[in-house]
Amino acid sequence: MPQQRDLSRTRERIMAAAQKEFAASGFAGARTDAIARRARVNERMIFYCFDSKEGLYRAVLKQKLSARAGIVESTADEDFISSMVNGFAATCADTDALRMWQWEALDKSKRKLVAEEERRAYFQTEVARWRRAKANGTLPPDADEEMLLLVAAALRTFPLALPQVTSLVTGMDPLDPEFRRKWSACLDWIGQRLLAPDLTSGHERERKKSRRGRRAA
Amino acid sequence: MPQQRDLSRTRERIMAAAQKEFAASGFAGARTDAIARRARVNERMIFYCFDSKEGLYRAVLKQKLSARAGIVESTADEDFISSMVNGFAATCADTDALRMWQWEALDKSKRKLVAEEERRAYFQTEVARWRRAKANGTLPPDADEEMLLLVAAALRTFPLALPQVTSLVTGMDPLDPEFRRKWSACLDWIGQRLLAPDLTSGHERERKKSRRGRRAA
Repeated sequence: MPQQRDLSRTRERIMAAAQKEFAASGFAGARTDAIARRARVNERMIFYCFDSKEGLYRAVLKQKLSARAGIVESTADEDFISSMVNGFAATCADTDALRMWQWEALDKSKRKLVAEEERRAYFQTEVARWRRAKANGTLPPDADEEMLLLVAAALRTFPLALPQVTSLVTGMDPLDPEFRRKWSACLDWIGQRLLAPDLTSGHERERKKSRRGRRAA
Repeated sequence: MPQQRDLSRTRERIMAAAQKEFAASGFAGARTDAIARRARVNERMIFYCFDSKEGLYRAVLKQKLSARAGIVESTADEDFISSMVNGFAATCADTDALRMWQWEALDKSKRKLVAEEERRAYFQTEVARWRRAKANGTLPPDADEEMLLLVAAALRTFPLALPQVTSLVTGMDPLDPEFRRKWSACLDWIGQRLLAPDLTSGHERERKKSRRGRRAA
């Protein structure tokens, strides 16, 4: 079926072009005529393949999500530190996705979140992983797994989300190999300290001590 | 000089309106006619007072920066943990400023950064503070003060910068008092672990041990 194959290639070309446009201008700012020009297709093909600009946006977001979900599943044994360090590398390799989340954050139109259920499920997979890590003793017992997921997300993305701040503070672009090396080392340093069992048992001791104190009183 | 007083009130009204518009739509998206309507002035007053849209933007950013710099100076004894927890509270209290930085991050026009020197100086003040804290022993000796500043900035802002992620993970809006309580507790937990002297001396011991190991070998 050569026609079917052509159509699927056209869809791919449109999605690649759309990703660039959505990353550059956000959902509201992106224009379907510019996407068509970039993909070298007739604008009507976009509506034929994806029904609407929102249909196209949804398709691009879902593709991003399943790529990320694939990474998460393939690294299910990954510890918290590697998840930060590798997650930062993944963000560097695909800044378009982060820009799409940022545009979405700035959009005040109260539009319903695209692919909300898939995204919630994606995060729940990661939360479940840190819950298991707590049970296994590889994360401290007093860690809050939802908060920890937000901490990891913050540290994976911040230098690229506000690159002007990174430059003002360090004099380097966040994609500069030297900056990437320093930030990865810092994530490792943070991870070591957050997970330190020494400290956990220290806190445990404190807690037991104060419990004993209360019993004695 | 009643006229002078009127003019300064008009400037203030324009700046308050501009802050709202720039936060809502970014520099490129904000319209001076909308700012004029919101401030209830004739649009020409904007150009009379600030010369151009960029002049107005610069004035608003500088006002934000000096407010933040004032906070930094008034809390010069503040430790790293309080700076994260109070910085998060300050971000919650003024989400307009964060939105302005985000619009700036998404702007691909390669426009020169507004108030670049003042902002670099502002961050250098904070870096210098963490450098002193290292010297005083209140921050671990192996901490990198520039990276630590970015870590603090990330954790102060992330839940508000990508509020949709906060909602997907926790089911709460980042301004929900319950979320603010949990995130502040998490920042405190992180700070305790990052600064733990136990661990520092533990690492020191490790390093000394391995140094002795090398010497013995």
